[in-house]
Amino acid sequence: MPRRPTPILRFRLLLDTEHAIGPGKADLLAAIAATGSIAAAGRTMGMSYKRAWQLIDELNRSFAAPLVATSKGGKRGGGAVLTPMGERVLAAYRAIDHKAQTALAAELKALARLLIR
Amino acid sequence: MPRRPTPILRFRLLLDTEHAIGPGKADLLAAIAATGSIAAAGRTMGMSYKRAWQLIDELNRSFAAPLVATSKGGKRGGGAVLTPMGERVLAAYRAIDHKAQTALAAELKALARLLIR
Repeated sequence: MPRRPTPILRFRLLLDTEHAIGPGKADLLAAIAATGSIAAAGRTMGMSYKRAWQLIDELNRSFAAPLVATSKGGKRGGGAVLTPMGERVLAAYRAIDHKAQTALAAELKALARLLIR
Repeated sequence: MPRRPTPILRFRLLLDTEHAIGPGKADLLAAIAATGSIAAAGRTMGMSYKRAWQLIDELNRSFAAPLVATSKGGKRGGGAVLTPMGERVLAAYRAIDHKAQTALAAELKALARLLIR
């Protein structure tokens, strides 16, 4: 059997007893920034509009200001954008992710040596 | 409303497409080391024996050697101990956790300032 690859570190930030942000919500925010729409962002992640909207609603209620702003109607049927708070939170999450991966690279490599190969 | 506390970092190591180790399995290993029994360890975590056994079985199949060894029968009705591999994996997980918390303390504190208060 081929040697297994280095373990992948995924993390989640518990904001309080009911709210958290992890890789799924971070990717959803990034997809909204990329597509300009909650529905389209959800689709790129294989998620229903309802589910995507629930996650965004949760995020909007967790921080001191909403992370995503939506507009209804218009020629293109409304859309969604990251607010300045959304940009800050996404950037902070990505920075924490990058720092964790860098700081722990050696430890993760060492753990790979204990896995089945 | 009181200011929300600093976000708590929880992480999970993806070992391959099907296996992972996170806080639950790490705590279960520690509870087995403390209690000498899979059933008792599960109970301290509000987990059925079946569920605890499944998690341990998964861990035992993920690494190059089993993490938990069990003995059947005897005066005390059998028991479970961490193997040297189990001790190594638990120590590695705790070390990664500690290093992550230390390395990211400032970032987590900064994120707390963006939360609802």
